[in-house]
Amino acid sequence: MDLTRLISASASDAAQAIRSGEISSVQLVQACLARIRDVEPQVHAWQFLDEAHALAQARARDAERSEGRAGGALHGVPVGIKDIIATADMPTENGTVLHAGRTPERDATVVAMLRAAGAVILGKTVTTECATYTPGKTRNPHNPERTPGGSSSGSAAAVAANMVPLALGTQTNGSVIRPASFCGVYGFKPTHGLVPRHGVLKLSRTLDTVGFFGRSLEDIALIAEQCIGHDERDPDTRPRARPPLQRTLAEEPLLAPRFAFVKTTLWERADASTVEAFARLTETLGVHCQSYELPPATHGAVDWLRTIMESEMAANLEFEWERGREYLSAPLREQLMRGREVRAVEYQKCLARSAQLNQGFDDLFDNFDAIVTPSAPGVAPPAATTGDPAFCSLWSLCGMPALNLPLMSGPQGLPLGVQVVGKRGSDARLLRSARWLVQSVHKH
Amino acid sequence: MDLTRLISASASDAAQAIRSGEISSVQLVQACLARIRDVEPQVHAWQFLDEAHALAQARARDAERSEGRAGGALHGVPVGIKDIIATADMPTENGTVLHAGRTPERDATVVAMLRAAGAVILGKTVTTECATYTPGKTRNPHNPERTPGGSSSGSAAAVAANMVPLALGTQTNGSVIRPASFCGVYGFKPTHGLVPRHGVLKLSRTLDTVGFFGRSLEDIALIAEQCIGHDERDPDTRPRARPPLQRTLAEEPLLAPRFAFVKTTLWERADASTVEAFARLTETLGVHCQSYELPPATHGAVDWLRTIMESEMAANLEFEWERGREYLSAPLREQLMRGREVRAVEYQKCLARSAQLNQGFDDLFDNFDAIVTPSAPGVAPPAATTGDPAFCSLWSLCGMPALNLPLMSGPQGLPLGVQVVGKRGSDARLLRSARWLVQSVHKH
Repeated sequence: MDLTRLISASASDAAQAIRSGEISSVQLVQACLARIRDVEPQVHAWQFLDEAHALAQARARDAERSEGRAGGALHGVPVGIKDIIATADMPTENGTVLHAGRTPERDATVVAMLRAAGAVILGKTVTTECATYTPGKTRNPHNPERTPGGSSSGSAAAVAANMVPLALGTQTNGSVIRPASFCGVYGFKPTHGLVPRHGVLKLSRTLDTVGFFGRSLEDIALIAEQCIGHDERDPDTRPRARPPLQRTLAEEPLLAPRFAFVKTTLWERADASTVEAFARLTETLGVHCQSYELPPATHGAVDWLRTIMESEMAANLEFEWERGREYLSAPLREQLMRGREVRAVEYQKCLARSAQLNQGFDDLFDNFDAIVTPSAPGVAPPAATTGDPAFCSLWSLCGMPALNLPLMSGPQGLPLGVQVVGKRGSDARLLRSARWLVQSVHKH
Repeated sequence: MDLTRLISASASDAAQAIRSGEISSVQLVQACLARIRDVEPQVHAWQFLDEAHALAQARARDAERSEGRAGGALHGVPVGIKDIIATADMPTENGTVLHAGRTPERDATVVAMLRAAGAVILGKTVTTECATYTPGKTRNPHNPERTPGGSSSGSAAAVAANMVPLALGTQTNGSVIRPASFCGVYGFKPTHGLVPRHGVLKLSRTLDTVGFFGRSLEDIALIAEQCIGHDERDPDTRPRARPPLQRTLAEEPLLAPRFAFVKTTLWERADASTVEAFARLTETLGVHCQSYELPPATHGAVDWLRTIMESEMAANLEFEWERGREYLSAPLREQLMRGREVRAVEYQKCLARSAQLNQGFDDLFDNFDAIVTPSAPGVAPPAATTGDPAFCSLWSLCGMPALNLPLMSGPQGLPLGVQVVGKRGSDARLLRSARWLVQSVHKH
């Protein structure tokens, strides 16, 4: 492995090189830290980073390897953690001054799973305020005037800027897929309920999903597979076999996958570059892609998601509301005020619709392997906002697995993502279909 | 088996006698139908009963046996079904004129499970209006001026009056334990989520639980064990091993169980006969029973249950509200109006409390095998009401398994039940502890 290119190496290659002794975890972490020193002043991806602590973890991993104790799939590989995910050895501040200086007593389940897989927890990445819409300090690595997207802003930017090969984020509406699209990296929101959320800031039990950022599908499958499991403290996880994401991703599909190109009711929000890019993409995919019109039953999805999200946020952020709403941003206060007004009957009606919507997709997935749709209306907008999550809302509402594929570009060469969405529970198949799509596009 | 005493035989003995060929299912069903002809004019337990259809089922079961196909644990045994549980061969009217004459297309899962176990579905038993508080026509078999309790009025009364050895009911607040207490039979509300509710009138996903009536603990274990299982259409059921209720019930506990006598905050509602009966009971149990005061965190349980129940009812009965609220009783309309006003944040807060309450009981169950508490404030009140469910609310809110044991009596010799409550998921142990308690009382 070329040491000068360590920072752009894939996590899979790096893990293999560490396993074989070709490089050490300390070398890899040092390369990442040097890169961070270079670009962090422009990107501002990190909320907390202690170089000495990161290196101490790397040295411990190297010592374990020299003693023959290096079984984990991510042994020695650094990972960035969104700052709403609890770490017992670093602060977890949730993007609000109300939680400044807070260090949890225990790791979130997903952090403990990464440590068990041998990962080095490099540091905490910037989140928007309480993982909602008010931006943090992070800027888009492709253009500092633009947003990296939110709410997993720092995680997407850090992976895009080669500061770290892998990072954890979370999505409630569009907080993994949208920043991945704006920053030009792979983003993966698995099926709701696969990855335990214990220790993650709770906004919405119905919608919150832990997700992943990486620079290849292989890396996404590698980290996601370490983080799937049952945790009694997350009542939406289930005891079941871990899906073989990496093995399925590596398989050739027996038949070329079929993609449903879905414009949704939001197509008028898509800008000219997106419309043009998707025309080219569907042309490239040819017979493997067919337009599919969603039934009218799906048309209220953005509103139903908002009703569920805001009323669950109002319940889950009640402590923050009661103790210090004057320290919350005006947009977040407005969301919580709206959420507090929702009636329980309306809330339950929206929950019931989400269950019905999922059944409605059975027909689509009888005929198609995956949905192809925009990740966002266009490239990253100016940094005053975090961009529009609406192209993610329906899939978040349904808890369906979604990937951002960084395959296209728009004005000023800024990244423009393709969102592919799979059937609930068919995460491995979604990854395999996505790989086929990526290869098809690259062949052209 | 003495044919003149068939109607009072236990279901376990009857099933054994049918298996061995000593009696036929037709004989047993004929005996039940004759008894019904005798006492139904006073008790009014049945909403639908077609003698010919019941006998046809019994003949089919007898034919199967003669062909060597009689493997089910309830082969040939008649069971009464509360009229909010769907049957494909009989109407299911939910106790409201709005659903008069409605016959579902399919059996509820639990009815299909009973048929698979060989049961004869004898008929449909009277429910209160939509399984809420407005009484149906049923009267208490011990005194026709008194209520049988609700909402599983007909099921409790039919089993008490020897019309049928077993019956299904449901409990959302106190609808199994309370009528079992008033009618003097065993009643069992298992842990929430053990018995599938697909095909059962949905009032409250959080609270609704299918339960059982019988004249012995053995019969309760026999029928409950047939009805536990996973059903994808009930999202609160889980794939897991069926608990060995009958085997555990038959075991001698290694150590004599310890009971916590819990008065709850409702003790002032208990009438003089209840106070006196529980003083005698705890004296009888001696060192095996100890008073236990619940922490203040439990004190709002009755209100939290009402908030959850009424807001979920308002969502689930919206069709009835929109299409024909003028056909609903005034009390039910008031419940639905209150439910429609509940805010989503308040509703979620009550749901969260129910989860916290359950954790709080871990301490109690580290030291005790089961809770002993009244099933109701006293004996059955006059038939204009269905009695007070409040002594059941906390356990329903927590989804804990509960039994009514018909061990005591009050004024005019009317039945007075003992409620024993177990740890969530420890249904088999609860049955075993209850058997020990019953034997202890009978020894005195």
